[in-house]
Amino acid sequence: MVEGLRRELCELHAELPRNGLVAWTSGNVSARVPGDDERMVIKPSGVAYDDLTAASMVICDFDGEPVQDSLAPSSDAATHGYIYRRMPDVGGIVHTHSPCATAWAVRGEPIPCVMTAMADEFGGEIPVGPFALIGDDAIGRGVVDTLAAHRSCAVLMRAHGVFALGDGPRAAVKAAVMCEDAARVVLAARSLGPLVPLDPQSVDALYHRYQNVYGQH
Amino acid sequence: MVEGLRRELCELHAELPRNGLVAWTSGNVSARVPGDDERMVIKPSGVAYDDLTAASMVICDFDGEPVQDSLAPSSDAATHGYIYRRMPDVGGIVHTHSPCATAWAVRGEPIPCVMTAMADEFGGEIPVGPFALIGDDAIGRGVVDTLAAHRSCAVLMRAHGVFALGDGPRAAVKAAVMCEDAARVVLAARSLGPLVPLDPQSVDALYHRYQNVYGQH
Amino acid sequence: MVEGLRRELCELHAELPRNGLVAWTSGNVSARVPGDDERMVIKPSGVAYDDLTAASMVICDFDGEPVQDSLAPSSDAATHGYIYRRMPDVGGIVHTHSPCATAWAVRGEPIPCVMTAMADEFGGEIPVGPFALIGDDAIGRGVVDTLAAHRSCAVLMRAHGVFALGDGPRAAVKAAVMCEDAARVVLAARSLGPLVPLDPQSVDALYHRYQNVYGQH
Amino acid sequence: MVEGLRRELCELHAELPRNGLVAWTSGNVSARVPGDDERMVIKPSGVAYDDLTAASMVICDFDGEPVQDSLAPSSDAATHGYIYRRMPDVGGIVHTHSPCATAWAVRGEPIPCVMTAMADEFGGEIPVGPFALIGDDAIGRGVVDTLAAHRSCAVLMRAHGVFALGDGPRAAVKAAVMCEDAARVVLAARSLGPLVPLDPQSVDALYHRYQNVYGQH
Repeated sequence: MVEGLRRELCELHAELPRNGLVAWTSGNVSARVPGDDERMVIKPSGVAYDDLTAASMVICDFDGEPVQDSLAPSSDAATHGYIYRRMPDVGGIVHTHSPCATAWAVRGEPIPCVMTAMADEFGGEIPVGPFALIGDDAIGRGVVDTLAAHRSCAVLMRAHGVFALGDGPRAAVKAAVMCEDAARVVLAARSLGPLVPLDPQSVDALYHRYQNVYGQH
Repeated sequence: MVEGLRRELCELHAELPRNGLVAWTSGNVSARVPGDDERMVIKPSGVAYDDLTAASMVICDFDGEPVQDSLAPSSDAATHGYIYRRMPDVGGIVHTHSPCATAWAVRGEPIPCVMTAMADEFGGEIPVGPFALIGDDAIGRGVVDTLAAHRSCAVLMRAHGVFALGDGPRAAVKAAVMCEDAARVVLAARSLGPLVPLDPQSVDALYHRYQNVYGQH
Repeated sequence: MVEGLRRELCELHAELPRNGLVAWTSGNVSARVPGDDERMVIKPSGVAYDDLTAASMVICDFDGEPVQDSLAPSSDAATHGYIYRRMPDVGGIVHTHSPCATAWAVRGEPIPCVMTAMADEFGGEIPVGPFALIGDDAIGRGVVDTLAAHRSCAVLMRAHGVFALGDGPRAAVKAAVMCEDAARVVLAARSLGPLVPLDPQSVDALYHRYQNVYGQH
Repeated sequence: MVEGLRRELCELHAELPRNGLVAWTSGNVSARVPGDDERMVIKPSGVAYDDLTAASMVICDFDGEPVQDSLAPSSDAATHGYIYRRMPDVGGIVHTHSPCATAWAVRGEPIPCVMTAMADEFGGEIPVGPFALIGDDAIGRGVVDTLAAHRSCAVLMRAHGVFALGDGPRAAVKAAVMCEDAARVVLAARSLGPLVPLDPQSVDALYHRYQNVYGQH
């Protein structure tokens, strides 16, 4: 099972450069090992996207420590683990510095919910969490605390980048792609003039339909 | 004949990501079944562009109901059907949230006709239709009513995205591509300063020449 | 000889979509038949870039009339011919609506010479020619008259797009690529604040060095 | 050994167009010949990226003179040599006119350190050096003097472009990619409103961690 997860994670990493979310080796995807409350699979640190293989994916505990001989995991591994511990429904996490979303993060502004695609996917604005340094629980805590007050599956960490979550790693990659798309469109829209958020009733109607009707069931 | 249409539609869907019009699984193309006032072919809902095949394309009636065992159609199918019913010359429809055009839609501003390529293709501005929720006839009605007052083959739906129409699906895809191109150029031009629309006589001359002389006949 | 020119022209057309200069079938490249004061080779009208072949390239006279059985030439053919007649050193012409350059053309502003790459390639600003309708000599005359007062190998035609010239078709494609690159960079720079043109002595020094020293000789 | 370096340099040049850093033939990468205080390998002048081969790479002395029969080297070769002479820890240099970074260079503004990825990679702002003409030591001196006062591995040369440095050519290419990424994000962020630089203590903490912990060791 973990082998299949390594392969899936390797393939999903290819979506990051393909969708313009990452530069050089930045960014990472992880997956919770299903049925396991202690382990995840994550990108190795500082490896080029072209050089990633299923075998190079790192199995870690939720403190970010590899559980077997492997490459060094992403330096964000402990942050991913913190989120998996506090959010049991989360099965996949993506972290990027995708350019348009990070522009909003640098400004410390949430992306306002001004279009139907954002209501569909995020159920409202994409919020901004606090500025936090890497190295302890601060980033993970910022992600978890900020998302506790929103329906959004993505959060902008101030002056840093994006964390996007899903019930599995593919859903998390989708959330990261749609977050960057929303960031790009709303950035361009605001360059044209002031923006008006959608009314909350419309946002609710769109969110519930999209979460329940869209796609194959 | 329907088999050929499925193949054509599958190939045309590849133009959407290739031209930067869609993110993840969003967007769709449909084609009226020629000589048939009740049926169309459309993208299945929530399927990745790389996974689309001719066989996965869905044949629906104009209420958006599949007419045979198939995947679930795009959740926009009933909107496409509404347009086919009211606009008998339309043989193909594209719906996208393409980024620059959607920026204008978020602002609720038409794209002014400030360059020859817009006069050629759209015969004037690209108009904005009303904000409308998915689920009943509101979006389709907004598209049809807005285009009744314009020569444009594309319309921006407020806070939503683009519907582009053609006599067949390839012409509709062209309209969607040219709409995004116009949206990008005019967005950049307006960042440089105020814009002046072309005079109506020039727009008429350009539109008539392009519709009648351009291309192979 | 004309066969080799058709092949070269077909390959050069692939540089237009590759460098982001064109949408759908817009844009075209032509080449003067060397040693011939009456004929050129040019793109057929309205054909997709993927479908172009050497055999599909059209041989025309300078009025834009095909000289043998062929596809219909680009509707810009007579404009290319006008330029070849008046500018005997020009051996290749590219016409595009490339997005950033066309944004400047829509505003009717020349691209100011604010960086060394523009001094190198264009020897000063990229000027703007008049608004002119297609169908008679007006566009060609606007190109020729505007460039008579500048060293630039590219001109923005107001509310329309770009004409780029070279001693052969490859040099013209280079000029079109560098024009769009300059348009993109200077557009972004101006969004940061007011710009100061380079002093004329520096522009002269850069232009003369680049035209004489750069590349393989 | 020099043969391996030619191959590596040829492969690294492919990263420049792939990462959107160059237009047509502009831009170049060089590598100091390891253990040699007099020689480097560099791109030939004016050759298309698709046509580069390991054999076409030029071995020069630090005055930019080829040391064997070869193509003419990049016209920036003497500038690279100046930097290698004065900065003995530098083993690779990249020069580009990458579009967003050059926009900042045209404005003559440093890119402020407003996000963690810039603190990680550059340890502060990306500074701007003086305007200098090609042809003598002025550009090289501007690069060396400007970087003497900063931790940054990249510098914007006013109204010109970027020089990015590393202990080898791969590190220099990474610096050039991350410089353009930072330039793009901060340009977009500033279009949203005024920006606040990170506090120096956070910048120091991020820089030291990234330089010492990130990646495989």
